[in-house]
Amino acid sequence: MPGVGEKTATRLVYWLLRAPEGTGREIADALIALENGVKECSVCCDLTPRDPCRICADPNRDPGAVCVVEQPQDVLAFERSGEFRGGYHVLHGAISPLDGVGPDDLRIRALLERLRGETVTEVILATDPDVEGDATALYIARLLKPIQVRVTRLAHGLSVGTEIEYVDALTLARALQNRREL
Amino acid sequence: MPGVGEKTATRLVYWLLRAPEGTGREIADALIALENGVKECSVCCDLTPRDPCRICADPNRDPGAVCVVEQPQDVLAFERSGEFRGGYHVLHGAISPLDGVGPDDLRIRALLERLRGETVTEVILATDPDVEGDATALYIARLLKPIQVRVTRLAHGLSVGTEIEYVDALTLARALQNRREL
Repeated sequence: MPGVGEKTATRLVYWLLRAPEGTGREIADALIALENGVKECSVCCDLTPRDPCRICADPNRDPGAVCVVEQPQDVLAFERSGEFRGGYHVLHGAISPLDGVGPDDLRIRALLERLRGETVTEVILATDPDVEGDATALYIARLLKPIQVRVTRLAHGLSVGTEIEYVDALTLARALQNRREL
Repeated sequence: MPGVGEKTATRLVYWLLRAPEGTGREIADALIALENGVKECSVCCDLTPRDPCRICADPNRDPGAVCVVEQPQDVLAFERSGEFRGGYHVLHGAISPLDGVGPDDLRIRALLERLRGETVTEVILATDPDVEGDATALYIARLLKPIQVRVTRLAHGLSVGTEIEYVDALTLARALQNRREL
C-alpha cells in the first residue's frame, strides 16, 4: 500500500487489536462496499459510484470539450482549479513500454467511440508532462488526425509564484520557446 | 547573511579562531577585492569583473533580443538552459510598493536608453511569475508601447516532468488557458 511500510503496518495491526470488537469487520465491509460500489463511468471512464458520473450527468458542463487525463486524481486537480467546464476522459495510465503498458491497456478505444458519437469540438490532451505522458498525447493526437476535431496540449512553462533562479533548465527552455506577446 | 543564523555564525567564528593565523586577513582581502572588482556592466547592468560583461562583449550573441530579468542569478539560470542566445538586462529587483521599491530603484531607465540606441527587435520580459514580477513586466510593457519592438513574456504552465495530480490550481488554470494546438 502506498505510504504504508512495515512500521506503519505494525502500528495499524496493534491499533486494530486494541480497537472495540467488530472494528475489523466494519472496515472489511467498507472495503467490499467500496470495491462493489465504485465502477467506471461508461462515458468518461472516471471512477464513480453511479453511471454516468456526476460530471458526465451535469447538463451545465460544456459537451464540446473533452479533457483527456491519465488518472482519476487528475480530474480532481482540474476541478480544484475551477478553470475547466467541459467533460473528462480518464485513460487509467499512460503508454509505457518499459512497464508493459500499451495503447490497448488504456481507455483509448472508448475515447474514439465517444468522439464518433458526441459533438466534441476540442480534445485537450492533459496527460502528464513527462516522457510517458508526452508519448501518449502524441499517439492519441495521431489517431485523432482523420477526425474533424481541434487537438490541444496543456502549456509548458513557469509555475505561478516560482522564482526563475530555481526553475530547472528544461522548464525554462520551454517557457522561453512558448513565450507570448504582451 | 542568507543561510547563516546564530548557530552557524558561532561555528564560523570558532573555526576562524582555530584557523592558521592570517586566515581572517585573507578572507577580508578577498571580500574587499570582490567588492572593488565587481561592478555593473554599462550595457546590461549585470554584475561583472570587466565592462562590458562577457555576454555583452560576445560577438556571437544575437543583439536583436534582450531578456529582461530581476537578478544576476536569473542570467545564470537562462545560461544553464542553453536556450537563449541574445543579450540580457538585469533590473536588480522588481517593483514592490510594500518593500518601498519603485520603478526608479530599478535599471529601467538604462533599458530604455539601450533600446533607443541598439537594434533590438524583441524584449522578453522574464521577471519572476509572481505578483511583483508580473507588475514589473506590465509596467515595462506599457513604457515600451511607443517603441517599435516586440514585447513578450515567458510562458506559464506545467514544469517538465511534473505530475498533474500535484500541480497547484493556479498553474493548472494557466496551463489550460495557454494550451496550444498539437
